[in-house]
Amino acid sequence: MRILIVNPNTTASMTERIAAAAEAVAASQTTLVPVTSTMGPASIEGYYDEALAVPGLLEAVRSGEREGAQAAIIACFDDTGLDAARCAAAIPVIGICEAAVATASFIAQRFTVVTTMERSRLPLEALMDRYGVGRRATVRAANVPVLALEDPTSSARERLCREIERALREDRAEAIVLGCAGMADLPRQLQVEYGIPVVDGVAAAVKQAECLVTLGLTTAKQGAYAFPLAKPYSGILAGFSPSDALST
Amino acid sequence: MRILIVNPNTTASMTERIAAAAEAVAASQTTLVPVTSTMGPASIEGYYDEALAVPGLLEAVRSGEREGAQAAIIACFDDTGLDAARCAAAIPVIGICEAAVATASFIAQRFTVVTTMERSRLPLEALMDRYGVGRRATVRAANVPVLALEDPTSSARERLCREIERALREDRAEAIVLGCAGMADLPRQLQVEYGIPVVDGVAAAVKQAECLVTLGLTTAKQGAYAFPLAKPYSGILAGFSPSDALST
Amino acid sequence: MRILIVNPNTTASMTERIAAAAEAVAASQTTLVPVTSTMGPASIEGYYDEALAVPGLLEAVRSGEREGAQAAIIACFDDTGLDAARCAAAIPVIGICEAAVATASFIAQRFTVVTTMERSRLPLEALMDRYGVGRRATVRAANVPVLALEDPTSSARERLCREIERALREDRAEAIVLGCAGMADLPRQLQVEYGIPVVDGVAAAVKQAECLVTLGLTTAKQGAYAFPLAKPYSGILAGFSPSDALST
Amino acid sequence: MRILIVNPNTTASMTERIAAAAEAVAASQTTLVPVTSTMGPASIEGYYDEALAVPGLLEAVRSGEREGAQAAIIACFDDTGLDAARCAAAIPVIGICEAAVATASFIAQRFTVVTTMERSRLPLEALMDRYGVGRRATVRAANVPVLALEDPTSSARERLCREIERALREDRAEAIVLGCAGMADLPRQLQVEYGIPVVDGVAAAVKQAECLVTLGLTTAKQGAYAFPLAKPYSGILAGFSPSDALST
Amino acid sequence: MRILIVNPNTTASMTERIAAAAEAVAASQTTLVPVTSTMGPASIEGYYDEALAVPGLLEAVRSGEREGAQAAIIACFDDTGLDAARCAAAIPVIGICEAAVATASFIAQRFTVVTTMERSRLPLEALMDRYGVGRRATVRAANVPVLALEDPTSSARERLCREIERALREDRAEAIVLGCAGMADLPRQLQVEYGIPVVDGVAAAVKQAECLVTLGLTTAKQGAYAFPLAKPYSGILAGFSPSDALST
Amino acid sequence: MRILIVNPNTTASMTERIAAAAEAVAASQTTLVPVTSTMGPASIEGYYDEALAVPGLLEAVRSGEREGAQAAIIACFDDTGLDAARCAAAIPVIGICEAAVATASFIAQRFTVVTTMERSRLPLEALMDRYGVGRRATVRAANVPVLALEDPTSSARERLCREIERALREDRAEAIVLGCAGMADLPRQLQVEYGIPVVDGVAAAVKQAECLVTLGLTTAKQGAYAFPLAKPYSGILAGFSPSDALST
Repeated sequence: MRILIVNPNTTASMTERIAAAAEAVAASQTTLVPVTSTMGPASIEGYYDEALAVPGLLEAVRSGEREGAQAAIIACFDDTGLDAARCAAAIPVIGICEAAVATASFIAQRFTVVTTMERSRLPLEALMDRYGVGRRATVRAANVPVLALEDPTSSARERLCREIERALREDRAEAIVLGCAGMADLPRQLQVEYGIPVVDGVAAAVKQAECLVTLGLTTAKQGAYAFPLAKPYSGILAGFSPSDALST
Repeated sequence: MRILIVNPNTTASMTERIAAAAEAVAASQTTLVPVTSTMGPASIEGYYDEALAVPGLLEAVRSGEREGAQAAIIACFDDTGLDAARCAAAIPVIGICEAAVATASFIAQRFTVVTTMERSRLPLEALMDRYGVGRRATVRAANVPVLALEDPTSSARERLCREIERALREDRAEAIVLGCAGMADLPRQLQVEYGIPVVDGVAAAVKQAECLVTLGLTTAKQGAYAFPLAKPYSGILAGFSPSDALST
Repeated sequence: MRILIVNPNTTASMTERIAAAAEAVAASQTTLVPVTSTMGPASIEGYYDEALAVPGLLEAVRSGEREGAQAAIIACFDDTGLDAARCAAAIPVIGICEAAVATASFIAQRFTVVTTMERSRLPLEALMDRYGVGRRATVRAANVPVLALEDPTSSARERLCREIERALREDRAEAIVLGCAGMADLPRQLQVEYGIPVVDGVAAAVKQAECLVTLGLTTAKQGAYAFPLAKPYSGILAGFSPSDALST
Repeated sequence: MRILIVNPNTTASMTERIAAAAEAVAASQTTLVPVTSTMGPASIEGYYDEALAVPGLLEAVRSGEREGAQAAIIACFDDTGLDAARCAAAIPVIGICEAAVATASFIAQRFTVVTTMERSRLPLEALMDRYGVGRRATVRAANVPVLALEDPTSSARERLCREIERALREDRAEAIVLGCAGMADLPRQLQVEYGIPVVDGVAAAVKQAECLVTLGLTTAKQGAYAFPLAKPYSGILAGFSPSDALST
Repeated sequence: MRILIVNPNTTASMTERIAAAAEAVAASQTTLVPVTSTMGPASIEGYYDEALAVPGLLEAVRSGEREGAQAAIIACFDDTGLDAARCAAAIPVIGICEAAVATASFIAQRFTVVTTMERSRLPLEALMDRYGVGRRATVRAANVPVLALEDPTSSARERLCREIERALREDRAEAIVLGCAGMADLPRQLQVEYGIPVVDGVAAAVKQAECLVTLGLTTAKQGAYAFPLAKPYSGILAGFSPSDALST
Repeated sequence: MRILIVNPNTTASMTERIAAAAEAVAASQTTLVPVTSTMGPASIEGYYDEALAVPGLLEAVRSGEREGAQAAIIACFDDTGLDAARCAAAIPVIGICEAAVATASFIAQRFTVVTTMERSRLPLEALMDRYGVGRRATVRAANVPVLALEDPTSSARERLCREIERALREDRAEAIVLGCAGMADLPRQLQVEYGIPVVDGVAAAVKQAECLVTLGLTTAKQGAYAFPLAKPYSGILAGFSPSDALST
């Protein structure tokens, strides 16, 4: 089983940490294919970065599928470009926020998502509503830039822990969801430290991808996720025009 | 990895078909432990049957956990007794409706659940709301008794198909979710027949259980799913009194 | 008019206090029939106790109906087993939470439910959603075990009052709903003490039961509350198999 | 016990039929005081009539309270002026729609409100949302003018029945709620005719009023229903200026 | 273009300030017609005042339309009588709360409404739900009587500012909506003072009225806003009986 | 006043028709600046096209703002890239769907959006939820490709009319919202033809843009719409890296 993990943040060191977290939980027969997007922002913080990360992501998903991937993971907690990627590909595509939320829902009635920057709080609240857990989930920002998570000398971990402690006290969170792909190395330690379940979206998404492939399920192609229609595209994005193969 | 599958319908032939569907998707290192509940209704159709299936289910979950199960599945699409079982056990407990809905949500924006009897329609609509997909999911009843699914000479399959066809036409369903543990043998054929994804909860729950175990996640014990408090129980249910071990 | 009040907590002293509160508001022509369940937990605190209280409750409702009750009340604020009891009986069945909420809704726009244990908070929040007052009602736990309410020397009343005061200050509650059958003796005193309406579910349910009987209304039997279908039941619950009379 | 029933439709013959329906269910110790409003529309059909029925209604509620009423009922299914009347009075005030919905909710999971004119459908849908039953209730209009219900030679009853039959077939209604005070004489016959519960708001409101008085509950005066503040009123409505007594 | 602005508060000095704020934003070709209602409360604070302001408002809207107004504005933040006025008139009718909320929604994801009295908080929360921004908007009361806003020596402005500061800190408001027609002179100063967008409903409504007139859009007359049916009205409100012209 | 209208569909003939519809309603002192995006799909039909239209749109908005535009309109009914554009610009940015919905909400309680292709139906239903009108609005697709609207010989208009007629009959729509920028030339004729309000988003957005500029309101920059943070961007999108000016 071949599973593509696209990091839409164009920072290779971050992809490495994501890949390590993914490998730690993947089944032995799974081959993970981690890819760093080649177009767009070094880190995704807010709607503007999100939107401009999508072409690179779509390119990576389409290439990955052509090269045999059976499922794709979008390794950004905003689930950037998820709907577009589901249209572009026949294989299942999984967002790490969506996977984390689905996973946390099996083990806790109330949970808190701890994300990086305040500007990501409202986009994630909207995702919680979309995924049907608006009443179950609280979203908190630790005021940590995404790339500070790459830097062991930053205060990122402390700030994150401070917010987890507030979640336990003020939100009466039963579980914590880590709200950034860059936190994928932390759940096990935090789970021991705080004595409650801690869910990371990257790991969760790997397992969900394996599930879907094993179950023989692929994205529904009748309705909102139909393949894009063939038509001309202009300018530097002309290459993204849906191919005939894609739109049959 | 050892995963318990409890059939709260006290009909052994149904458990066999559930077990076969589960085996078909389980990982090679997974040992499935299918158990037929020893107390309660032969089939679960409506709230009354549901409620009286719960003690047998809880008994089976507690025994299963003592004997080493690392996760438990409730193989009834009403997710009967799910919250109680999560309190009783330390291991994760998964309902097949919840698993099917989570799985379908990764591949379709709108889906239809086709269940057995009309009396199960409103309980399932309430579950759709609970799982946050009330706006995405339609529930239909095929007017098929649960145990008719055991009988190849019944018209069960035809009725089911008629309702799937209505779902495609009237609900514009992008995927179908089979709304009864007794339909676990059908998804692959129906998927071929109708050309859209068909999700069975038993198979979905097996994969979700494997996910949670691999991720090292167990039921949150701070909050709504805390272990039951030690206290006396009366009458024929006296044996259900939470043990000290359980309530520590 | 004959109204059954079932205490699904198997503690007779609690039933006595419930009966006294019920008598205080019953119409002169009403005969109350208080019954303590004979199976299940001494007190209901959380989902596990809730589930195991149901068979005893159903037994009591079915017996009560056979002996001529025209309505039944479930005297546990979790409205444990309400749907199952409505299937089992032809007479109307009323949960005390449901009755309290309906009553409070006539006199206040925002109210706070003060319940016993933290583990009951989320189940009650789910009930508030079910009864359509999720936006109007706040739920608070006073951290008082149910049976401590039986003990005049405990600090139960103080803790309850502390939480009421917080509700007035922090939730701007316009009314208080007492969230446990074991608090049925308190509303009048608290109403004087705090100068706002205080609603007890036991008293509210007695009046709602009288309403329904006078209006000639019984549980709808076409749909979700249809009588259970005749079928075999196994093990220690075999006696719960729906009788022919029941399922006609 | 003295209960005021205000008919905000200024049509005395309608008040008589309302009073008869109320008397049929009132407790023996209850004295009903039916009053026809002296200002405003002969019948209430749509928002414009609704708004102009309110001053007459408020006048009647205030007079009735001064003369010793312990509760007041607004006998118009739009629950016209309900919030204003709750501010104006210390006694509880009950809308017949609110009472019917609360009553139906105890006996059915899904019900259909059959009202008079299409122009009342959306206002009633908004009330269903307000009362938290938007997902449980369907609203249908029978295309019958309110005062046609006074005329036994009209086709009103036929049209009503046609809509009830549609509700059973298309909405799978488990119970019917009659959506106009002018239908208060019909529930018993229709209940026999259709074999499902039929709820009339006038009767339901009488019983709810008796409940609240017996329980010693009055409108919350801290918050949205506080007494109006003393201030000058102009023009033909000058007499409505809150008295000092009212606003203390 | 002729736009009517009705102040349903019967206080002429308040109308003057409203008119000034309206003039400041009106297009050069717009003629504003400010009118003080001649019946009802000097200021609108809570449901009782609201209800009794409606007849005067409707009278003013109908007169204004007869005299050639092409749109009407209701200058009270409770949007008092909005639905009734839409039935009464053919021209579009705009509430200032509705206009403010629509306007704020274009520039901010989360905003706080700062209104006058606590008793208006829950009515405004209900409006936020009606206008679909219940999750985006917080409502706060500054504890300022409406007419204190007319008095430059009162502490009204200070209290308002204190609440705005709380909104920034505690609600993380991105914009402020001023929740009273009597605050119409403040937005520009406050916007400078706090550095975030401040929306006043009067100004917003003037622009929305101009939009609708330019776009050639008038109130939908098929459905809930159909003209009132011709029928007799009684008592001091007899003159409000819909004219034939109105009800054709 | 200078208002930018960006057509994110890279089809110049469509931009011309949009510009004509905009000119027809713009104030005399408004200068409209219509721009056709230079990157991305010829027409936007579904999520994939939507996502790839965003970079060109953002480029156009940023250029337009630098050249003095005081507000920007996104002329695609999916409101593609709206949040990202609000981050990128200081001036207000308006989506035509959002503007149409806000406008329709002032004149009708229930309306139907008639869009082009079935694949756009679910994305628009999600927008209706986002804009708080999920319960008020129905979305229908006429099965018309976007560019067929450019071709007078196609059956586009007939199909559109057929769907409008269904909306009147089946949805009881009180008004129609045209769900594609390419329909901007139709509202006046259809309004005459069907006798109900017909709202076009392009015209509505022009008026909303004028409102915001006149009111001195710009996008909130504290919160979700904060300027993007300065950071490197890779590949063909490197030029989109937020400038220092932008991110200050």
